[in-house]
Amino acid sequence: MHRTVIIGGGFGGLYAARALKHENLSVTLVDRRNFHLFQPLLYQVATGALSPGEIASPLRVLLRKQKNAQVLLADAVDLDVTGRRVILDKGDVPYDSLVVAAGARHFYFGHEDSWEPVAPGLKSLEDATRIRHKILYAFEAAEREPDPEARRRWLTFVIVGAGPTGVELAGALAEIATDSLRHDFRSIHPEESRILLLDALPRVLTAFPESLSAAAERQLVHLGVRVIPSVRVTAIDADGVTYSTATSTERIEAHTVLWAAGVKPSPWGEILSRRVGAELDRVGRVKVNPDLTIPGHPEILVVGDLAYLEQNGVALPGIAPVAMQEGRYAASVILNRLRSRPVKPFSYFDKGYLAVVGRNSGVGIIGGVKVHGFIAWFVWLFVHLMYLAEALNRALVFLRWGYQYVTFYRGARLITGDDDPPTTLK
Amino acid sequence: MHRTVIIGGGFGGLYAARALKHENLSVTLVDRRNFHLFQPLLYQVATGALSPGEIASPLRVLLRKQKNAQVLLADAVDLDVTGRRVILDKGDVPYDSLVVAAGARHFYFGHEDSWEPVAPGLKSLEDATRIRHKILYAFEAAEREPDPEARRRWLTFVIVGAGPTGVELAGALAEIATDSLRHDFRSIHPEESRILLLDALPRVLTAFPESLSAAAERQLVHLGVRVIPSVRVTAIDADGVTYSTATSTERIEAHTVLWAAGVKPSPWGEILSRRVGAELDRVGRVKVNPDLTIPGHPEILVVGDLAYLEQNGVALPGIAPVAMQEGRYAASVILNRLRSRPVKPFSYFDKGYLAVVGRNSGVGIIGGVKVHGFIAWFVWLFVHLMYLAEALNRALVFLRWGYQYVTFYRGARLITGDDDPPTTLK
Repeated sequence: MHRTVIIGGGFGGLYAARALKHENLSVTLVDRRNFHLFQPLLYQVATGALSPGEIASPLRVLLRKQKNAQVLLADAVDLDVTGRRVILDKGDVPYDSLVVAAGARHFYFGHEDSWEPVAPGLKSLEDATRIRHKILYAFEAAEREPDPEARRRWLTFVIVGAGPTGVELAGALAEIATDSLRHDFRSIHPEESRILLLDALPRVLTAFPESLSAAAERQLVHLGVRVIPSVRVTAIDADGVTYSTATSTERIEAHTVLWAAGVKPSPWGEILSRRVGAELDRVGRVKVNPDLTIPGHPEILVVGDLAYLEQNGVALPGIAPVAMQEGRYAASVILNRLRSRPVKPFSYFDKGYLAVVGRNSGVGIIGGVKVHGFIAWFVWLFVHLMYLAEALNRALVFLRWGYQYVTFYRGARLITGDDDPPTTLK
Repeated sequence: MHRTVIIGGGFGGLYAARALKHENLSVTLVDRRNFHLFQPLLYQVATGALSPGEIASPLRVLLRKQKNAQVLLADAVDLDVTGRRVILDKGDVPYDSLVVAAGARHFYFGHEDSWEPVAPGLKSLEDATRIRHKILYAFEAAEREPDPEARRRWLTFVIVGAGPTGVELAGALAEIATDSLRHDFRSIHPEESRILLLDALPRVLTAFPESLSAAAERQLVHLGVRVIPSVRVTAIDADGVTYSTATSTERIEAHTVLWAAGVKPSPWGEILSRRVGAELDRVGRVKVNPDLTIPGHPEILVVGDLAYLEQNGVALPGIAPVAMQEGRYAASVILNRLRSRPVKPFSYFDKGYLAVVGRNSGVGIIGGVKVHGFIAWFVWLFVHLMYLAEALNRALVFLRWGYQYVTFYRGARLITGDDDPPTTLK
């Protein structure tokens, strides 16, 4: 039987596996985690609106009824291309077709060692609980701090990067400060918090048309976020951020800095480059053929954030809808080849693009039409709820959102983790 | 204004704080955590039935409307009894009345260093996610393991201690193996797992009458748990447990050993012994007067798991109802003293005692009447749901339980944490 191995259980890998459901071949999905993570809602875990379990579903459960699929909790560390085997941390797994859907991590432009410990990015559940810890702990530390200047440092939040994640984090932080925590403290006023959103480019959400960027910025400002465009961050430490503008160098004193700026593809880009000579783009994504295979290796397909493919002269963005469609398409390529049928090139169907800013506010393009405000927010909620992988999670998230909408209450406000309180913050 | 300081936001501390709600005094609640944990349901987090957020509520939210109360996220490390100040990790807080509700941790009878790393106990949320990690990872490792003997070691689970926590863990583990994971694996059969419950005493649930212990044991055996009474554990390592019976020494090969045997009061017992000469019992609990004060110090009260008080010749057990009633009573002592009213000794009103074994099964005494099976289980569910501190959590837990009852599905099955996969288990 034809053996398909899929590396990664994100949107690309999961949708590829599912698209092979009723087929007469074997599917092995390898992931370091036992769950599929619904990344678009990760910022809601980071800001205490949802619990980790509500946006993650065990891969075994999602593929339970797919009799031809096996899930392996393992680290795929290398490729034996002549032997057609994926090398795992322990043992290996043979393939006839390989789908690499290994995704991306955040990237600090060479400052990993010094910036990552103080300015966490948001890609995994651990990242999210770490950010949640940092945000909530800052208010607690401020409450205990008698010195006004030190207190101000605790109540200043800097987000680097004004893409969708940065905008969503900034909007949620503003709501936490002004609404969720309003009556919870006795010494501080959370609504005095400062939330600053920095970006290297001149506007927020650069993937959107200018009019929508402007709308999103207005919504952010309305929520109390200060947007600082066209700056280059030059230093981050435990006490703040230094950035330079065209004319000067500025310093913001802040204990909480969050990173939403750079993304770097998985090491599987390097592995494919080394083992099969795959060409990488500037940031390390694998340049694939129009059918998502690697030149010279029709048995290896790359999908999702790790793949670089242009369409109409523009690179496809690293977002969930692209990964889902690529995953499904990769499955069709494997099937068509097995049946010796012709393969049409991949074509991304752009249903729309949405970013939420806060309660009742967001921007987006739905079916080619620009929307902002309540309608963008509402469609965003609906779409995200609909795409959650499990019925139970849909019900739990719906309940949390409904309750939060009425009461402003964020229920998942736990400071957990072994570094609690974090020693660097004492 | 009279200043009351409460150390610990568990059942004792929280109920003491709340009982002072409308009074003309100030309340400062100090806890190292920002949340109140509903410990009786902790084993459900450890076994993937509930998410951490569903059994924990931010202390600030619980005391939000209580204008005379302040919450401090801080570590109370010492006592200045002449200056009447509690020393925190940073700064201090003055008191006129002090309620110490610092609780207990697990205890390995002098084997902390060697046993704790391999056999986690269950007292905190981190403990619960660590145990969840261990249990779920064992099945994953077994699925990847070709050697039958090594596989068997992964599928053997040992629980040391057959009190309520041990019984609940064993029952839930049996359900995980036989029902929840039944269709999720391709190489292993989770229902072949062995679950062993060890205890030093001759029967399970020794706090219950013999007939109920026997009923609980029958229910456990029915679920597939092997109960091994009257043994003394002599060694635990990453590969198994050694124990001795009256006549021999036995060894169980198992990668997953859980600790539910010993409990040790908080270091605040030692602090009170050193600073105010409090007398401690054998395990380190503070022997209190019938009004929960420390002899010679009417301004210091001890409640919950840290307090040792006999009633009708028997020590009150370290359970939530005792802590709640002691907390409320401590508040009344403070108020009565302020008003120069006489104080009656504390009297525990025993409403009942319940332990759940598994689906539709449990044992208990309700209002003096022995119950077992469905009725014990049902009352247990109802009582625990009712006592959850927040309406939102009640709704979420109800939803999870209802879904699980119908589908056998445990939704919170995430393997998370920085040691993932744990290096010691590779």
